[in-house]
Amino acid sequence: MKVSEERRRGCPERTILEHVTSTWGVLVLTELSAAGTLRFSELRRRVGGVSEKMLAQTLRVLERDGFIRRRARPVIPPHVDYDLTPLGVQAAEKVCALAEWTERNVGAVLAAQVAYDTAP
Amino acid sequence: MKVSEERRRGCPERTILEHVTSTWGVLVLTELSAAGTLRFSELRRRVGGVSEKMLAQTLRVLERDGFIRRRARPVIPPHVDYDLTPLGVQAAEKVCALAEWTERNVGAVLAAQVAYDTAP
Repeated sequence: MKVSEERRRGCPERTILEHVTSTWGVLVLTELSAAGTLRFSELRRRVGGVSEKMLAQTLRVLERDGFIRRRARPVIPPHVDYDLTPLGVQAAEKVCALAEWTERNVGAVLAAQVAYDTAP
Repeated sequence: MKVSEERRRGCPERTILEHVTSTWGVLVLTELSAAGTLRFSELRRRVGGVSEKMLAQTLRVLERDGFIRRRARPVIPPHVDYDLTPLGVQAAEKVCALAEWTERNVGAVLAAQVAYDTAP
């Protein structure tokens, strides 16, 4: 715990990279990038498979990093909107490029894995 | 354990993304991208702070995915060279773009964190 904390303190860019490349971080950034503004419940439906607690935690981390903006709407029933900040738009662009490249190349990687596993 | 494995099986692109965005995965890809070919010992020195065991494990995962090539040199003393495959060059390009963007924007993120933590 202590070692990990020290490493993180000395290396903020690594921690930030971990936030944007985390399982739910990637999906939140790509969904907001595609949709613009989303309510919590819409975002949760689109991300898929994420608990309320994990989504709330992911959103809080990305909001604290300055990547997303949270706005509570004083309407009835009240709801909360999320969208990307200008900094978040830039981060999402890079993350989407990497995620899209990975999706396009899954076949090549799976083929490489089979070749590796069956090599004499 | 079982749930995680099932999730991974159903979502290979997520697992691949985790490999290239892992702490040591990012550093191995960026160092090989910058240097071309490196011996194990050179790579370990450049990556910095990684144990022999963790580096060997990271290299094996990235080799199995088809991102890096391992060549044992039959010389005396024997040594092993690593470089990126064409697929690895493409992956490294996207990873480097994200890592470089993060490095350039650490200041903006740290400022956002301070603003978040001190908000009334």
